[in-house]
Amino acid sequence: MEALKQRIRQEGKILPGNIVKVDSFLNHQVDARFLGQLAEEFARRFDVSRATKILTAEASGIPLASVCSYCYGIPMVFAKKAKSDNIEGGLYRSDIFSYTYKKKVTLICSQNWITSEDKVLIIDDFMANGEAMRGLLEIVRQAGAELIGVGVAVEKGFQQGGDKLRQEGVPLQSLAIIDSANEDGFVFREE
Amino acid sequence: MEALKQRIRQEGKILPGNIVKVDSFLNHQVDARFLGQLAEEFARRFDVSRATKILTAEASGIPLASVCSYCYGIPMVFAKKAKSDNIEGGLYRSDIFSYTYKKKVTLICSQNWITSEDKVLIIDDFMANGEAMRGLLEIVRQAGAELIGVGVAVEKGFQQGGDKLRQEGVPLQSLAIIDSANEDGFVFREE
Repeated sequence: MEALKQRIRQEGKILPGNIVKVDSFLNHQVDARFLGQLAEEFARRFDVSRATKILTAEASGIPLASVCSYCYGIPMVFAKKAKSDNIEGGLYRSDIFSYTYKKKVTLICSQNWITSEDKVLIIDDFMANGEAMRGLLEIVRQAGAELIGVGVAVEKGFQQGGDKLRQEGVPLQSLAIIDSANEDGFVFREE
Repeated sequence: MEALKQRIRQEGKILPGNIVKVDSFLNHQVDARFLGQLAEEFARRFDVSRATKILTAEASGIPLASVCSYCYGIPMVFAKKAKSDNIEGGLYRSDIFSYTYKKKVTLICSQNWITSEDKVLIIDDFMANGEAMRGLLEIVRQAGAELIGVGVAVEKGFQQGGDKLRQEGVPLQSLAIIDSANEDGFVFREE
């Protein structure tokens, strides 16, 4: 998606350790109207009219998933990173390794909000190694729900998480795939 | 706001320890179109046209703040709970005690995204003792920004956090104030 690549070129930052930051519009400060354009692009790439739920993971996936939920008129569910006492029994649980926090994290989601009746569109802001995405896919599997697709705004292609999921047949669409990010800037994969 | 009170009566749950759960539409599963109605109500209560930024705290404030950002066409910033290595220097920091997690939490926010030029509308899904809100107000103060107002969807009136803030002159508007929640159900404060 050219508008997203342009915005990454203009505002994205590359930090040591191949960390790509797009926190001016995607995941710290959030330009929700721009996210509405991403939601429209996902609606061109997936059969959103069949979806009954949007699923994402806290925290940075929530803005984009919320805007998708608003635009499509279907509920959004965000999986939580386990630590709260406020979630009672009846949970899907999926262990992932968080590279951001350098530790194991358990994604949890109430069984009330994703069931075998649901047709789920997974949405996330960012994918690197794909660990968080595997956790969300595992929740959909545990629920016995149908997966409509997986929509990601920015994929770090050089960390291969997305390519592995595609090889496994996951219907993944990333709106911008960064194949390299260094002192020369960003190189995006051709669509 | 009557529509919100109705929805709390229909779907809200009361758990031991005065924990009120509205996770079917507000902060686990999220009905973003309904949140759009809350955004419209905030726009009637505050001069949203003067606001340049919406500020909230991760994670459960993000859906409502994102929908407000989308509806008003101004950026949203969410303060993070400190733990990530991905946030470099130049931060506002505010220590709060999280009753949800039973420990001290530091809210952090990049100085890039809230400045002394900003007119800030704080939005959150829930207020009980008001600790998280004090953290957000402290960030606005550190930035030297102007506070337009504080909009909360559901306030637990019996925990007094909101009343204390009002007594201190904080322009707080809560769309539903629960004055008691027990086996007999919810009692809302008259508007």
